Amino acid sequence: MNYSIIRYILCRVLEFQALFLSLPCIAAVVYREKEGWAYAAVLAACLLLGVFGKMKKPGSTVFYAREGFVTVSLSWILLSLTGALPLFLSGEFPSYTDALFETISGLTTTGASILTDVEALSQCNLFWRSFTHWIGGMGVLVLILAILPLAGGYNMHLMRAESPGSTVGKLVPRVKYTARNLYKMYVVLTIVQIVLLLVTGMSLFESMTLSFGTAGTGGFGVLNSSIGSYPMVSQAVITIFMIMFGINFNVYYLVWTKKPLQALQHEEMRYYLGIILMAVLAITINIRGGFQSLLQAFHHAAFQVASIITTTGYSTIDFNQWPEFSKFVLVLLMFIGACAGSTGGGIKVSRVVIMLKLVKNELSYLIHPKRVRQIHFEKHVVNKDILRSISVFFITYAVIYGVSVLLVSLDELDFTTNFTAVAATLNNIGPGLSQVGPAENFAVYSQPAKYVLMFDMLAGRLELFPLLLLFAPSTWKRR
Amino acid sequence: MNYSIIRYILCRVLEFQALFLSLPCIAAVVYREKEGWAYAAVLAACLLLGVFGKMKKPGSTVFYAREGFVTVSLSWILLSLTGALPLFLSGEFPSYTDALFETISGLTTTGASILTDVEALSQCNLFWRSFTHWIGGMGVLVLILAILPLAGGYNMHLMRAESPGSTVGKLVPRVKYTARNLYKMYVVLTIVQIVLLLVTGMSLFESMTLSFGTAGTGGFGVLNSSIGSYPMVSQAVITIFMIMFGINFNVYYLVWTKKPLQALQHEEMRYYLGIILMAVLAITINIRGGFQSLLQAFHHAAFQVASIITTTGYSTIDFNQWPEFSKFVLVLLMFIGACAGSTGGGIKVSRVVIMLKLVKNELSYLIHPKRVRQIHFEKHVVNKDILRSISVFFITYAVIYGVSVLLVSLDELDFTTNFTAVAATLNNIGPGLSQVGPAENFAVYSQPAKYVLMFDMLAGRLELFPLLLLFAPSTWKRR
Repeated sequence: MNYSIIRYILCRVLEFQALFLSLPCIAAVVYREKEGWAYAAVLAACLLLGVFGKMKKPGSTVFYAREGFVTVSLSWILLSLTGALPLFLSGEFPSYTDALFETISGLTTTGASILTDVEALSQCNLFWRSFTHWIGGMGVLVLILAILPLAGGYNMHLMRAESPGSTVGKLVPRVKYTARNLYKMYVVLTIVQIVLLLVTGMSLFESMTLSFGTAGTGGFGVLNSSIGSYPMVSQAVITIFMIMFGINFNVYYLVWTKKPLQALQHEEMRYYLGIILMAVLAITINIRGGFQSLLQAFHHAAFQVASIITTTGYSTIDFNQWPEFSKFVLVLLMFIGACAGSTGGGIKVSRVVIMLKLVKNELSYLIHPKRVRQIHFEKHVVNKDILRSISVFFITYAVIYGVSVLLVSLDELDFTTNFTAVAATLNNIGPGLSQVGPAENFAVYSQPAKYVLMFDMLAGRLELFPLLLLFAPSTWKRR
Repeated sequence: MNYSIIRYILCRVLEFQALFLSLPCIAAVVYREKEGWAYAAVLAACLLLGVFGKMKKPGSTVFYAREGFVTVSLSWILLSLTGALPLFLSGEFPSYTDALFETISGLTTTGASILTDVEALSQCNLFWRSFTHWIGGMGVLVLILAILPLAGGYNMHLMRAESPGSTVGKLVPRVKYTARNLYKMYVVLTIVQIVLLLVTGMSLFESMTLSFGTAGTGGFGVLNSSIGSYPMVSQAVITIFMIMFGINFNVYYLVWTKKPLQALQHEEMRYYLGIILMAVLAITINIRGGFQSLLQAFHHAAFQVASIITTTGYSTIDFNQWPEFSKFVLVLLMFIGACAGSTGGGIKVSRVVIMLKLVKNELSYLIHPKRVRQIHFEKHVVNKDILRSISVFFITYAVIYGVSVLLVSLDELDFTTNFTAVAATLNNIGPGLSQVGPAENFAVYSQPAKYVLMFDMLAGRLELFPLLLLFAPSTWKRR
């Protein structure tokens, strides 16, 4: 293990954290809030540590997959630990654990909160909470790769370890170029959403924070009612942008490079939109009795489906009150998740589709054992390594799931709460059902259970393996 | 598809069904119950259909995996449809659907009942219910293979399609010999249990029916309190035999052929016993406050753990009242299930262990991509086809699981009920939690939901694929 280069990159990450923290400082100045001092102090500390820590250049530039995974995991842990400090120092969170839970929930774009009263927070804290979604959505190391002139083989390893989804199809071959393009599209889409929300009558502060939450598929709101008290047109804009940020960014790159026909043929996007359509229709029919008009039922069904499948977690309504069938449709969407290469979480549509193709293949294999069939996705044959890694991903996912529910069960909350709390954190969604439903929050859990859920949020965002590798002794052996 | 040979074997199955039905007829004579006429009538019908139907010999003896899967699936459906008739004709079941549910539950060794009052049934119906467990435990086609002089290549295909577990390790190479040995050990173990239960003071009727339920890992009792009102020593005997019938029968074959040391080294058995030990300890600690002595807590923990991991489903206590943690331990055991090559259901210990080894392998692959590692189980390298089939089995399992819960959600029962009802049927256990807990029954579900759960029971017992293949159009194409 090449420790010196990991230290070097972590110091870079701290510098970027200082940069990020400057935004809530500005917010504090605008709103004349004394909580700004906490941000300024942590900013200064991160900057000092980063600048001095990276003065000694790394002795070796050896950088393999192992270093990539460890660097990414540690970067996210470091960002969480430092990002939670100003929240804790502001005195608006009951404990550092709670501030940490909130920060990890923000960075991993989960949006699960331990706060009973969001509106009591100062504006700079609200801004920071939402901004962590935006940072976490596309990823910090992707940003560093886009901006800094880091040379050498490690770019690819960092990018792979931080980006969501299996590596089916790449944006463009060169990592730096890819990272830049991703952030360009990300910034443009975010700005468009902010402008549109302003047009529907929202304040600049709300437009920005809610757009950060949408872009990162996060879900922290600034009101206790989440998105419920905004006008229908604002909610509709958010619905559309949630769906857009759940699409594989390859699609936008194809549009950007003027290949709209190819963009329309994107297989993962088609399945994703197909699933959304079916789910919205099923729920609309199931809940229509509870609304004055079919349009209203459709509007709320569409919002909640978009929010859950993209793993955003905003809500316009307390869907915990919906019929069991609609609730379970939402639970299934929690697991499916958004497209790979988007900012959304979950298992990812491409993985689910490839797994279904595997099942179909197995059935035809049982009938005709001698006929070898290959699995196609996005017009390419999916190679065996990817098939294996998808299967193992799913198995690992199920194992982490089972162990997590077992551990949080020690708190003696009901099964539905535990089951959906883990679903909501491991898939980076936010709200679950029952006692962690959209009208409730995660304060019901004990401190130990919160650490389990924090682990799940990080494991979900980093796609399980980078975080698990931290616990494998062989990861830490020197070469 | 070679239809004529399938017809021929199905007629043989009907003849065996007639044989099975003679036992409840005897019970009816002994207890002088008029319900015996229903059994006699169905017996006669099965016998006539079987004898006349098989008169025309099959034109071709071509028999491949495809024919094997279809034959096994159709045999089980045929046994269920005919086996439900006497229950329905006796007038003791509200509808044919309910009688069918009960019969499928019996044959698949699930033990989920739609009866509120078991004790109201006539003795011959009680006997038949329990005896279906014994038939289903080891399998009908395995019995036919053991007894009839069927020649040709189809033995292996039938055996494979009906026996639980992936094909890791075979008992002995020759199918007929294997089938006979399996039944010999099955009969001997069952008789030993009957004798031991008689010694603890049970009646012959109870000793037989409860031993059938234990041997097949079924779970139908003859009292409303399941096993709760028997003395502790009887309960302890049942605990031990449940655990024994959940062990891979390879182990008994090794003991039988005087290789006890090899038997002790059986990897799957060791993991299985290890899991039981850990679960019993965890639950004992968790529930000890609710009992007068630690021994009592241990006794009930051991019974329930043995009952659930072996997918039997007997209960001595209403574990739905236990703390959440203990309940979730039991839910996890529902999924793990018993050993492959036993009469138990679930995913099977060997599959779970191999999947965990896959995860461990993936982690080491990520650290050292060039170092190829193989997975060992029972001292052999597990080949890639088996690894693939285990992964795909698990994916298929999850898909059937999700779809089933979605469909039964339409009944608007709570999530815990739906989730554990599917767990209890797909894993062939019997009781779940909440409204399908050990003190409740499956009468709460509507007729359509019952058909979904019947499908799950059959799919679980036949290990998913044989049943799914019935729905694949290419299965039915003529060559």
